[in-house]
Amino acid sequence: MDRITIIKVGGKVTEDSVSLNALLDEFNKISSNKILIHGGGRTATEMAGRLGIETQMVDGRRITDLAMLEVVTMVYGGLVNKKIVAGLQARGCNAVGLTGADLNLISASKRPVKEIDYGFVGDVDDVNSREIRLLINENVVPVIAPLTHDGKGNLLNTNADTIASEVAIELANYFNVYLIYCFEKKGVLQNPDNKNSILHELDAELYSEYKNSGIINSGMIPKLDNAFRAKRSGVKEVLITDTENIATGRGTRLV
Amino acid sequence: MDRITIIKVGGKVTEDSVSLNALLDEFNKISSNKILIHGGGRTATEMAGRLGIETQMVDGRRITDLAMLEVVTMVYGGLVNKKIVAGLQARGCNAVGLTGADLNLISASKRPVKEIDYGFVGDVDDVNSREIRLLINENVVPVIAPLTHDGKGNLLNTNADTIASEVAIELANYFNVYLIYCFEKKGVLQNPDNKNSILHELDAELYSEYKNSGIINSGMIPKLDNAFRAKRSGVKEVLITDTENIATGRGTRLV
Repeated sequence: MDRITIIKVGGKVTEDSVSLNALLDEFNKISSNKILIHGGGRTATEMAGRLGIETQMVDGRRITDLAMLEVVTMVYGGLVNKKIVAGLQARGCNAVGLTGADLNLISASKRPVKEIDYGFVGDVDDVNSREIRLLINENVVPVIAPLTHDGKGNLLNTNADTIASEVAIELANYFNVYLIYCFEKKGVLQNPDNKNSILHELDAELYSEYKNSGIINSGMIPKLDNAFRAKRSGVKEVLITDTENIATGRGTRLV
Repeated sequence: MDRITIIKVGGKVTEDSVSLNALLDEFNKISSNKILIHGGGRTATEMAGRLGIETQMVDGRRITDLAMLEVVTMVYGGLVNKKIVAGLQARGCNAVGLTGADLNLISASKRPVKEIDYGFVGDVDDVNSREIRLLINENVVPVIAPLTHDGKGNLLNTNADTIASEVAIELANYFNVYLIYCFEKKGVLQNPDNKNSILHELDAELYSEYKNSGIINSGMIPKLDNAFRAKRSGVKEVLITDTENIATGRGTRLV
């Protein structure tokens, strides 16, 4: 099977033009098939603020009412996605920007209301890779925004880490998938106060231990849950690292 | 050659959900290959207003400084485009939303400053239809937002009527192209005060006469200039009509 590298890049990296350009330079160097999946939460929060719309987060997840859905549709699907696509085209990389609605790529269901009403937030039901595989075979590079759709005409806001693992798992049927969660740190830290205390390998047992002891906490938990699910579901390799180490392959490798 | 129908739909039609749904229903009924090209100027003006950004128009064209470029990127590429894509997917139509940067579809040059500095407005240099033809052959339906790119990483704002004619002319090399400019009137009117005074046919001579006498004026002139250029450049048929008459083929036919 051919290799494909899927990079999920977090908000802090994409939302500053210096770090975005560094990321696009590194991404452009990857010689295998590739996909870029991005967030954009900070820009969405800022844009919402400018429009007088209050941002509410619960456990790091955005409450998405209709007004906020418009904001994330504009920011993720328009502003952030198209800036990345134009930046890759400038580097000779034939990118295409997609949401989960485009090509019916990712269908989802609106999250049921239990204690919390997350609003227009989608839990992924299905990834349909038919048309993007066609494009990948033509050296096109998909750039995916964290939006899904319900098949009834509604867009839904879906966590970008989840989209990365779901797309990776689907493509593992067709490719050797290398999934990289790229963020502002060099990997998962053993000591949150020491940015060089990288865990080079992390297995499920150690993860569980570190979660229980609180060494791994808050935002890292859903990211790592997604990462481990991908690793268990046929994805060849999962790495958590920063922009600089996309090429070196250093960081935290799930085993 | 296969037939392809290209519908360019104006702002008034897409920006109200009742008329948008009527349009998507009619568009979905077209059995040939098809492409939808949309505007979104009114939504952009409204969003700019909410963000405290003033809209300046010269001869119906938007002055696009950096702040306005962000607005049109969000509104055309995100909000309007993805709403249409999700609406088509809900109708079983496998749409993909694209700007001119995606798949390097439309490259353009920033308009040179003469009397007026239009800012980040692009004049089309080239349409590259390779990848969208691949998608069309797979029954995918492109939905194109009026944004282009300069190949150096910058998005540019380009008039949707122009994008429609440029895409139609390029595709005329591969398909019998039926280009429909769909707007809120039933066609070009002989008497602007009588909405039923449709000109059923319009040739270049009559167009020139009506322009000189002022019967055809303002916003209709760039639209018809684009339409006639398409007709002269290999596009099989060009029709100007409203949503209802997409199916009937009634309206103003260029001859």
